[in-house]
Amino acid sequence: MSKSPINLLNKFSKFTEHWSPKVVAEMNDYQFKLAKIKNDFTWHSHKETDEVFIVIEGAMRIDFRDGWVDLCAGEMYVVPKGVEHKPYAKDECKIMFIEPRGVVNTGDAGGDLTAKDDVWI
Amino acid sequence: MSKSPINLLNKFSKFTEHWSPKVVAEMNDYQFKLAKIKNDFTWHSHKETDEVFIVIEGAMRIDFRDGWVDLCAGEMYVVPKGVEHKPYAKDECKIMFIEPRGVVNTGDAGGDLTAKDDVWI
Repeated sequence: MSKSPINLLNKFSKFTEHWSPKVVAEMNDYQFKLAKIKNDFTWHSHKETDEVFIVIEGAMRIDFRDGWVDLCAGEMYVVPKGVEHKPYAKDECKIMFIEPRGVVNTGDAGGDLTAKDDVWI
Repeated sequence: MSKSPINLLNKFSKFTEHWSPKVVAEMNDYQFKLAKIKNDFTWHSHKETDEVFIVIEGAMRIDFRDGWVDLCAGEMYVVPKGVEHKPYAKDECKIMFIEPRGVVNTGDAGGDLTAKDDVWI
């Protein structure tokens, strides 16, 4: 019997809001999350874990206190644990990011952009 | 100062061999590996971990004892730990897969297709 793949663009078609991560898969205690992002996110860091960003469609920038990285579709970057960063996208950008289950999107910063855990699509 | 993203297609351009995983990134104790695959791999399982497959270019199939999943570019699948599987691609397919550092590609099966650990590109 045929099993269903996880189609990323299909999953992205199911929501419109920005900075609102949706879980699409789990691997052991890690989660794969999709988000549509636009404009500035909050400066924050994750003391306990690295975080991987993969751009699926569009372009984004991650600012660091000592520089930045520009990412476009088909590119990825690992933000090391403890490193302050601020994601940004001029136009809407579709990203997948990967981190342990339970990590809060705004890390140590909190605030209005803090998302609910574990929203699956 | 600008930092360098990991560009997946650029990394794929650096090797030609099939079933020979190359590490492109680490997140905590997990590795992101690229492979070009074609034809049949070995039936095997990983007793200790789930394994994520993401198709970057082309199409592949993963056979299970009780079925299969067809994956094309932009699709992913999580093979649960302990589940026997056999990757296959009719034509060359470019994939990224994610698993803990130190996992052997042929799992419990061994054989000629067993790759060296930790080859970075």
